[in-house]
Amino acid sequence: MHKADKLKSIITELFGKCGVSQAASCVVADVLIAAELRGIPSHGLLRLHDYISMLRNGRIKPDAQPSVIHKGPSTVTLDGDNGLGPVVSRHAMQLAIEKAEKAGTGWVAVQNSNHFGIAGYYAMMALQHQMIGICMTNANPLVAPTFSRIGMMGTNPLAVAIPANEEPPVVADFATAAIARGKVDLLHKNNLTIEAGFLQDSQGLATTDPGILKEGGAILPLGSSRKFGSHKGYCMAAIIDIFSAVLSGANFGPFVPPSVPWLQAKDNLPGKGTGHFFGAMRIDAFRPAEAFLQSMDLWIRTFRNAPPALGEDRVLVPGDPEREAEKKFRTTGIPIQGKVKEQIKALCNDLNVPYTLD
Amino acid sequence: MHKADKLKSIITELFGKCGVSQAASCVVADVLIAAELRGIPSHGLLRLHDYISMLRNGRIKPDAQPSVIHKGPSTVTLDGDNGLGPVVSRHAMQLAIEKAEKAGTGWVAVQNSNHFGIAGYYAMMALQHQMIGICMTNANPLVAPTFSRIGMMGTNPLAVAIPANEEPPVVADFATAAIARGKVDLLHKNNLTIEAGFLQDSQGLATTDPGILKEGGAILPLGSSRKFGSHKGYCMAAIIDIFSAVLSGANFGPFVPPSVPWLQAKDNLPGKGTGHFFGAMRIDAFRPAEAFLQSMDLWIRTFRNAPPALGEDRVLVPGDPEREAEKKFRTTGIPIQGKVKEQIKALCNDLNVPYTLD
Repeated sequence: MHKADKLKSIITELFGKCGVSQAASCVVADVLIAAELRGIPSHGLLRLHDYISMLRNGRIKPDAQPSVIHKGPSTVTLDGDNGLGPVVSRHAMQLAIEKAEKAGTGWVAVQNSNHFGIAGYYAMMALQHQMIGICMTNANPLVAPTFSRIGMMGTNPLAVAIPANEEPPVVADFATAAIARGKVDLLHKNNLTIEAGFLQDSQGLATTDPGILKEGGAILPLGSSRKFGSHKGYCMAAIIDIFSAVLSGANFGPFVPPSVPWLQAKDNLPGKGTGHFFGAMRIDAFRPAEAFLQSMDLWIRTFRNAPPALGEDRVLVPGDPEREAEKKFRTTGIPIQGKVKEQIKALCNDLNVPYTLD
Repeated sequence: MHKADKLKSIITELFGKCGVSQAASCVVADVLIAAELRGIPSHGLLRLHDYISMLRNGRIKPDAQPSVIHKGPSTVTLDGDNGLGPVVSRHAMQLAIEKAEKAGTGWVAVQNSNHFGIAGYYAMMALQHQMIGICMTNANPLVAPTFSRIGMMGTNPLAVAIPANEEPPVVADFATAAIARGKVDLLHKNNLTIEAGFLQDSQGLATTDPGILKEGGAILPLGSSRKFGSHKGYCMAAIIDIFSAVLSGANFGPFVPPSVPWLQAKDNLPGKGTGHFFGAMRIDAFRPAEAFLQSMDLWIRTFRNAPPALGEDRVLVPGDPEREAEKKFRTTGIPIQGKVKEQIKALCNDLNVPYTLD
């Protein structure tokens, strides 16, 4: 188990050695460790090796200077200059918040960015300003639209953070696919099968083989099949793709560039990099903030106190599991998988950063 | 089969006889017939009897005067004055479009409204202004949050309409539950069972009995079970509930008033009526409109031309089925179920409107 601060300091040093400024390195460290603290390690230190490899092989620009390429009273379009996703995205969300300060709401479309970690991080930035925060991104094409033979969309997540008064905020942060790729890979590695309803094979037919993603298979949208509403998951992912990429001028659907170094960069792309979309809404642009915050307390208590189904402990409110994980890991420290620890050790060795996790 | 215009004229007359103005009656007729044309009869003429009963028994106000109760540069909160949902909502969406004209984006939260028909109608109003339209609403509590024993949320739909250049627009319009109530009722009426994954019983356990909704059962969120991602459907419905009702001061979750006359109105409610949320975003607030519209054409063609899964004809783009239905029904006329026709006949008889559908 490792303290968040110690991990952040190592990460910051590692990025510093790759030509990333101290301030930007701190942002990436903060976002990756937030994922670990919130119990989402698939978006945490596991990504460190990929981010750094892509900086070192020139696929991500270490000294990127994002620039505003279009704006209106409540809107901004940002060119991320092919920078690190977390750095571009934190800046974009700050712009959304600034716009909302003046216009009541602020909306920022981002092109030319990269993998940004957990969407919830950016949505939650709005909370301290008594705003609702919204964040979405497209991602590498792994998910098949309903009736499609091939993966055309990412797991395209949506995060929405909503402040309350005495209760902790509602923070929904979820992908629009039936399952995360990380979970599929883990089953494959352990030679297990996967229940039908998560994956399809290269013909577009249901399969229980978690290795299928390496053989032309795809993940199904939330809803799993047309009968159970996969067209709704497809709609969600499509909206997120269009907001993130068509509104910004980034690459959409099958054209999203790989966020991992071992997949070849694509040629002849219709847009620039990966796209995101951020929103901030002042509560008091709609209603006196105090009344809203008290209503949110009532909303949260009403749902949390709902009678649980037979065999279940309790009804959760969006954000409960992540907040509880964070409370725990802030005390116990963060557990790190052996394989990830090895990767960090190797990076420290390569980049001449003292490795202090043993 | 019946021509849209003839049906609209009967509906307009019927509402006129209930004290609704000519202009407002035309709006309701237009929204109900749009549902029929788009192949969503569950939100069309089937609702006529409910709307009119609730006007006649005083639960909906025929001469409602919606008023702006809060506003900012890009936002409005509207009190619907307990008017007919379609009338309130069309007005609200117009306000969102007006706000967007000036501020780039416009956002309208609505309290004190009623059932509004199809969400897609309002989202699509933005298209002719070269804007993206967004619409959501909460609804009667029929859907159980993940792990909950009871229904706490509506089927809370989301609609997003996005313009293109040569291609018809993308129009996603979908509920966040695993199945529509209407489909469950139809199975029950025909003494059929329903596959597991759509409903739970009064203990919160999976059931195949479509009659369970009348015995304390509930519909499951999109995703069906925790394993297949029902917590994501729950998150979606929760966000829509909070945007529609907590932001506006309407009733949320289990407190949403019934939209049918045979269910008792509720007492001691925390808010006013049913809530909706509308948004409009100017394309050119983010990017030159022409570039966006051409990219949308490419998005649409890319998805529509994706190779279909084995046994499937083609990949659909959100809005394709509804547009194709409309094309067909504009030519053939609209089919009306016998039972609905009987209801219209009875209403015409009661309200002294010539019945001309035989």
